[in-house]
Amino acid sequence: MPALPDKQTAFIDWYLAVVDAATLTDKRYGVKGMNVWTPYGFLARRHLDAVLVREIEATGSSPVEFPALIPANEFAKEKEHIKGFDAEVYWVTKGGLSELDIPLILRPTSETAMYPIFALWVRSHRDLPLNVYQVVNVFRYETKTTRPFLRVREIHFFEEHTCQVDEAAADLRVRSNLDAFGRMAKAFALPYVAVRRPEWDKFAGAFYSIAFDIPVGAGRTLQIGSVHHYRENFSGPYGIQYETTDGTQRLVHQTTFGLSERLLGAIIAVHGDAKGAVFPTAVAPYEVVIVPIPSAGAGPGPEATATEVVDRLGRHGRRVHLDSGDERPGAKYYRWELQGVPVRLEIGRREAAARTATAVDRLGRKQTVSLDTLEGEVDAFLEEFDRALYDRALATFRDAFRVVPSMDGLKEFAHVGIVGWCGKEECGHAIETAVEGGLLGTPESELPLAPGAPVACISCGSGTDVRWALAGRPL
Amino acid sequence: MPALPDKQTAFIDWYLAVVDAATLTDKRYGVKGMNVWTPYGFLARRHLDAVLVREIEATGSSPVEFPALIPANEFAKEKEHIKGFDAEVYWVTKGGLSELDIPLILRPTSETAMYPIFALWVRSHRDLPLNVYQVVNVFRYETKTTRPFLRVREIHFFEEHTCQVDEAAADLRVRSNLDAFGRMAKAFALPYVAVRRPEWDKFAGAFYSIAFDIPVGAGRTLQIGSVHHYRENFSGPYGIQYETTDGTQRLVHQTTFGLSERLLGAIIAVHGDAKGAVFPTAVAPYEVVIVPIPSAGAGPGPEATATEVVDRLGRHGRRVHLDSGDERPGAKYYRWELQGVPVRLEIGRREAAARTATAVDRLGRKQTVSLDTLEGEVDAFLEEFDRALYDRALATFRDAFRVVPSMDGLKEFAHVGIVGWCGKEECGHAIETAVEGGLLGTPESELPLAPGAPVACISCGSGTDVRWALAGRPL
Repeated sequence: MPALPDKQTAFIDWYLAVVDAATLTDKRYGVKGMNVWTPYGFLARRHLDAVLVREIEATGSSPVEFPALIPANEFAKEKEHIKGFDAEVYWVTKGGLSELDIPLILRPTSETAMYPIFALWVRSHRDLPLNVYQVVNVFRYETKTTRPFLRVREIHFFEEHTCQVDEAAADLRVRSNLDAFGRMAKAFALPYVAVRRPEWDKFAGAFYSIAFDIPVGAGRTLQIGSVHHYRENFSGPYGIQYETTDGTQRLVHQTTFGLSERLLGAIIAVHGDAKGAVFPTAVAPYEVVIVPIPSAGAGPGPEATATEVVDRLGRHGRRVHLDSGDERPGAKYYRWELQGVPVRLEIGRREAAARTATAVDRLGRKQTVSLDTLEGEVDAFLEEFDRALYDRALATFRDAFRVVPSMDGLKEFAHVGIVGWCGKEECGHAIETAVEGGLLGTPESELPLAPGAPVACISCGSGTDVRWALAGRPL
Repeated sequence: MPALPDKQTAFIDWYLAVVDAATLTDKRYGVKGMNVWTPYGFLARRHLDAVLVREIEATGSSPVEFPALIPANEFAKEKEHIKGFDAEVYWVTKGGLSELDIPLILRPTSETAMYPIFALWVRSHRDLPLNVYQVVNVFRYETKTTRPFLRVREIHFFEEHTCQVDEAAADLRVRSNLDAFGRMAKAFALPYVAVRRPEWDKFAGAFYSIAFDIPVGAGRTLQIGSVHHYRENFSGPYGIQYETTDGTQRLVHQTTFGLSERLLGAIIAVHGDAKGAVFPTAVAPYEVVIVPIPSAGAGPGPEATATEVVDRLGRHGRRVHLDSGDERPGAKYYRWELQGVPVRLEIGRREAAARTATAVDRLGRKQTVSLDTLEGEVDAFLEEFDRALYDRALATFRDAFRVVPSMDGLKEFAHVGIVGWCGKEECGHAIETAVEGGLLGTPESELPLAPGAPVACISCGSGTDVRWALAGRPL
């Protein structure tokens, strides 16, 4: 196995090599940008999804599933939305041996599948709020270079859609979603910024959009999710209205919250290192691998002890894997480090005799664990690992931003820039040109730096209505 | 709410009314045969899937997910298979604004998506067996009348695909699948027969097919799953071969195991009754609903006790739902019976004062439960409910079959016929004509009746090579 490319200087090459080496996906499928979820990658996705489901259901959202195919006429009802997606949808034009009367599109997102039904579900104020979500695959005919998990044509997708009584209630749902994402990101040990996108970069059909961005080195950023307020932009065309307590009809205000398999890409991109992938415990296909170290000698064998450890941790609810293959132990360590398993337990003859195991976490910390207190010690060791992983990610995150006081400073800049901006679109575009990237927007979460109040727009120099904005190079 | 149609005399009307009344699906979506999974229906599906996943993973199968779109040229490689599906696939011909170079089909099943990749995964005897499964949606341009869960165009689907060293190993995998299905069906309280389909009714491309059938009244049967042995029929065209221990190349033998949302339809069809749906505990969206009965008076209120019960059962791992709405209790009982909840706990002032709850199961059994021993008593009450539900289904199942000694006896016959058959195709077709249905095939599981050895073919009268076969009217 050749060494991985250098993460700092060859990020994308490093990323692609890690995804391959960790056997998370198989890219050899016959359609570009549509990859195979291998068993190992699928398990990571399963555990990632479980976090999303747990956190969104804790906020009172219910699971649903709408069809994958959308009639072309429903798709066309909201004009901005169709403009945004027209060039990237797949068209189903034939069923069996005959042309379809009405062509169908494969959902690129599900507004236009759900909202005609929402119009039937919502009748009265008693039906509100309507908070539902689904975890499904969506399809986009992506023309840019595809990358596993980061940009694909069949996308594993999480989408919440809600209907609220009015704009203020929808604002509150947006806040609740931001909080829920905070809890999800914590489980993934991912520091991020929430950023209100500028007008020209909103979701197609949105009133406003707040996205979650993470820096991935050299000023590059990755959008890992977003929350949108639609106001009445969709409820109007789709006729989603309700009878208020005083008997009048009103359109609902809507919100959406979208996440995708890109989160898995982000976990690899942020936590991975020179040794390969690193999974936080919540997502790891296996939390613990047990490696018995065979050797000749008297006393209890390592294999029997390894089996006991696997059984006990499994009963304790841990995802454990016994690696009893015939490779030498060093080759096993190397492979499980590549695959990002949080903790391995080494059990040799010495450990077996002493009723212990040697625990080593993916960040290199080592500790002897007594079998008498195995479950509690492994729990604590994993907890410390997650904390250390988050701390490492946070240090890198904090170092990825710089306050930039002048347009010149943005050129060939290796950080995400924090810049003063007057809010005018022309200045925004000037900043985008200077950074050779995007004006990500204005922060909605605490900045990793505390730069005080902005003084002037970095572009026009105006001191009126200046706010901080982030400038970076979206991947 | 009008009364449900009669299950015996108007089965399909009854079935459709129950599915609607129990709010398991919304059929008003704009594409025929593509329905919306409502929150309640989705939860039933989630728990049903969990049983499938648990049982198949217990047999050493790993989860994967292959793309939904299959290049037309890959789809065409196995000739029988494409003949079987050609008339019912959806074609994706356009991506964005341009025609695709190679049209794609939406998977109707995933042989042709998986097997080109299997050819890459399988290299050596050490890679075998390869046992993988996925739970995904598949698409079939169904031309018959669609029915929720029973016959739809977007189908929630479970498919296991395996590669084995030889025919005997593949036979063993088929047996392992039959056993696994037995455990799944037990969790769903569904009696069934496993039947080897006649040659003319095999899966497209199979060497042999074994299907699971359940009787649903009046001689009608529902196929709720199937297991297939493919021999080398696919591994040949797709080049899935391995190096044996002696260095030669051999094609693998393959098997598949398919189930679908039809299982949910079967659960409704078999267990439902004049009061609506009835869910076995394993599948129930809520296992227990708690209905506090408000009333004036002194002492502890029913609401506080209800909250305590919900909290305790929830912590105990039970899926509980507190119905604190302002309907009267009778209306709530009626609705939860319609929706098939296994057990309700009624808590009035008297119960609250006595620290008890009145448990009533969906079959009408009633019992006072002490809060001191709440968790254990509820567990036992649910277990007894599942047993009683299975016993009720088994009695109906046993009564659905009859040995039929003559062709005349098959006409206007209200049972699934057990008939002597010589194995010849022409006699099979004659039986199908007589029963106005199908020769389901020869039983691979114990028959519900023990008819002794068959004497003569019901069609030609031959006494040579006679075996029992089942004749019914597949729904």
